[in-house]
Amino acid sequence: MSVATVKIDETIAALRALLGERLSTSRAILERHGKDETFHAAYPPDAVAFARSVEEVAEIVKICAANRTPIIPYGTGTSLEGHIAALQGGVCIDVSQMDKVLKVNPEDLDVTVQPGVTRKQLNEHLRDLGLFFPIDPGANASLGGMTATRASGTNAVRYGTMRENVLALQVVLPDGRIVRTARRSKKSSAGYDLTRLFIGSEGTLGVITEITLRLYGIPEAVSAAVCSFDTLEGAVNTTIATIQSGVPVARIELLDDVQMDAVNRYSKLNYPPKHTLFLEFHGSEASVREQAEAVQAIAADNDGGQFQFTLQAEERTRLWQARHDAAYAAKALRTDCEIWATDVCVPISRLAECILETRKELDEAKVVAPIVGHVGDGNFHVAFVIDTKNPAEIELAEHLNEKIVMRALAMDGTCTGEHGVGYGKMQFLLAEHGGDAISIMRGIKKSIDPQNIMNPGKIFTQ
Amino acid sequence: MSVATVKIDETIAALRALLGERLSTSRAILERHGKDETFHAAYPPDAVAFARSVEEVAEIVKICAANRTPIIPYGTGTSLEGHIAALQGGVCIDVSQMDKVLKVNPEDLDVTVQPGVTRKQLNEHLRDLGLFFPIDPGANASLGGMTATRASGTNAVRYGTMRENVLALQVVLPDGRIVRTARRSKKSSAGYDLTRLFIGSEGTLGVITEITLRLYGIPEAVSAAVCSFDTLEGAVNTTIATIQSGVPVARIELLDDVQMDAVNRYSKLNYPPKHTLFLEFHGSEASVREQAEAVQAIAADNDGGQFQFTLQAEERTRLWQARHDAAYAAKALRTDCEIWATDVCVPISRLAECILETRKELDEAKVVAPIVGHVGDGNFHVAFVIDTKNPAEIELAEHLNEKIVMRALAMDGTCTGEHGVGYGKMQFLLAEHGGDAISIMRGIKKSIDPQNIMNPGKIFTQ
Repeated sequence: MSVATVKIDETIAALRALLGERLSTSRAILERHGKDETFHAAYPPDAVAFARSVEEVAEIVKICAANRTPIIPYGTGTSLEGHIAALQGGVCIDVSQMDKVLKVNPEDLDVTVQPGVTRKQLNEHLRDLGLFFPIDPGANASLGGMTATRASGTNAVRYGTMRENVLALQVVLPDGRIVRTARRSKKSSAGYDLTRLFIGSEGTLGVITEITLRLYGIPEAVSAAVCSFDTLEGAVNTTIATIQSGVPVARIELLDDVQMDAVNRYSKLNYPPKHTLFLEFHGSEASVREQAEAVQAIAADNDGGQFQFTLQAEERTRLWQARHDAAYAAKALRTDCEIWATDVCVPISRLAECILETRKELDEAKVVAPIVGHVGDGNFHVAFVIDTKNPAEIELAEHLNEKIVMRALAMDGTCTGEHGVGYGKMQFLLAEHGGDAISIMRGIKKSIDPQNIMNPGKIFTQ
Repeated sequence: MSVATVKIDETIAALRALLGERLSTSRAILERHGKDETFHAAYPPDAVAFARSVEEVAEIVKICAANRTPIIPYGTGTSLEGHIAALQGGVCIDVSQMDKVLKVNPEDLDVTVQPGVTRKQLNEHLRDLGLFFPIDPGANASLGGMTATRASGTNAVRYGTMRENVLALQVVLPDGRIVRTARRSKKSSAGYDLTRLFIGSEGTLGVITEITLRLYGIPEAVSAAVCSFDTLEGAVNTTIATIQSGVPVARIELLDDVQMDAVNRYSKLNYPPKHTLFLEFHGSEASVREQAEAVQAIAADNDGGQFQFTLQAEERTRLWQARHDAAYAAKALRTDCEIWATDVCVPISRLAECILETRKELDEAKVVAPIVGHVGDGNFHVAFVIDTKNPAEIELAEHLNEKIVMRALAMDGTCTGEHGVGYGKMQFLLAEHGGDAISIMRGIKKSIDPQNIMNPGKIFTQ
């Protein structure tokens, strides 16, 4: 047991007095809270505290702080780089019961939610108001978790990421104080940007307890399209030309041939098993038509196959469900295997080169590893499907992952476009930012969390 | 002389050895560098260093750090809250000679510039490529200064502020180390958001030496419109309804009757001297027409007068020049007076109430103080035209300024939408954020600038 958790018994006793049944140390609960959706070793916490209010979170944090017990905030557990692993033990604060939509301001196009509200729940809540929240990372993640990992996903090419769509936060600091990072005005020049500091801080600076988000009117018209390509180049070049021509696509997603084959099997579809772009257009009926025609012409110039419109809502839903199930479809390619999903992001001018070299390398290594991507942003994912009981497979995936990341960095890209660092990508942060920039991050961490109790061992070594 | 500047002679001697003629201690140069464009007492620095490269900036910073000499970064001196005042003496680093556009990447829609490049210079450079940088705070500010104050302006309603449009920075830290805050990919989840931390930090954390910015394609069609209103309410409600209906206006600017009268006189125009909206639309020809018609209908519902289109580029330029000259026009309302410009920003649902109460209060106090605003963002400015030799006028303006800010805060708004804090608005930061949030900012400042040499006395007391 590490020094930091030496007083875990005192912590648990005090938390049990505070929370009663809502403090759990059952093995099943602990195990479920120590592992996210991808392959990283599980590290269960010593206890899970189910909080119901910001005041409770503050009390829990104070108790942990008094005993120097590590704290790991938890939403839905759908992160991908081991963010929720209790590397040094400690208390997981599960905020899934803080699931109230607190206030919608339709006139200001904003909403304030508790952190356990999921993106689907929010959009259900908003539908009758004609509003929606666009950020869609695939999983039905909690908005607290999406904020903490600076998530984005399929709609980011048009609507931006959590960075652009969070207006303000309420946060419980590592000493139990409750702060607001900003107010509801659309812009402000009043002091350091604490909101953006907490977005993407992965639970290392505090527990997010309220989030104010931007909203958008549901577009008058939405249409989708699918187009397959014989070459990966054709699909990627179509994407690049679309972005450069300024067509305001809402979604432009690439699934390579390996992934399309997996999706066809898993979702019982019969698309050509080729490199494929899934697109969505938002706007007026005229503008949606205009956008689709523009992309169709670009695809034709790049040897695209049939440009298949799917205007009906039902078919659109089926298509995007298939896209969102891509990871599960990939997993189904091999029995008893796990997914290890990595993601990088590069300037779009380098995207074709980056994806083509990656695909070639994966093929040469003979690994099962489909590529999918939010290619409009220069962001793509590789899902290694590996037998985690076979150390050689893990080692090979690690080796290939490193090559993918280093290639992206060499192209002026980032080691993660949207998954975050967790403990899975810590070794690449230094390569990306350099030691001096990391030392600034470390100084900020120390100034806010001098005891290093907030999600220790994540992002960078403390 | 304060403790911090006690070794100023050593600093000046070392800087002179480094820079020769480019280290100035001439009275005229010092005075010009100690005062920005609005009414705040002047504080000239002890010396001005004209840097030409990041390496030189780093050397200057190291010399100052060794002697604990305050450093004030300087672009064009067009800030408005005393940001460049050398409150504790020290060395002003003037980066106006670092004015190179380093690299345009048209395919990635980004550009990297040195901090002394001004926004007009950048747009001149980009025009032949069919690209533009939209952020336009009025003054022909340097991009370094715009980054440091988190500037925005007339186009922000559509394109966002510096917060959304800076991709990455190179910064010289207070100990002379040079860091990059990010790479060129459109998004990243790799660690704390250092880019956003430096945006809006007003020179208190380091000297910005390179900026990578997002670019946009010059729209196919641009049109402008002017519409006057008998009541301030009609103009503001037209704005609110336009934003809420989702029309993607590029600019929607309010000038109240006092300001329109001033503009007519100063720019020799003959608009009705009423509350007026200036608008601009970007898009395809069809979409620009559609947008204008939508706003025209909304204006008519709110008792708007004639909706005057100005489709020609020349007339559009004249119109926007008049808008940009609003401050000078206001100043011309009274001879031998200075402008004290304040700005606040509120959620748009509160904008009508906020502006109407403010106008009433200003009228009752019988001050000359036109209101102009980037009203699409809920942001407006009051320009007090005051005789700064009359303490009673200053005191009254201070009193009214406080009431304006407190009203905006009570409406969940901010004490400054885009001007920044400088030393002019420090007392309001606590009211806006609370002591706990300020303590986080203070901790960050201390972790990056432990000697407190970077622009001391700004944003919050250190």
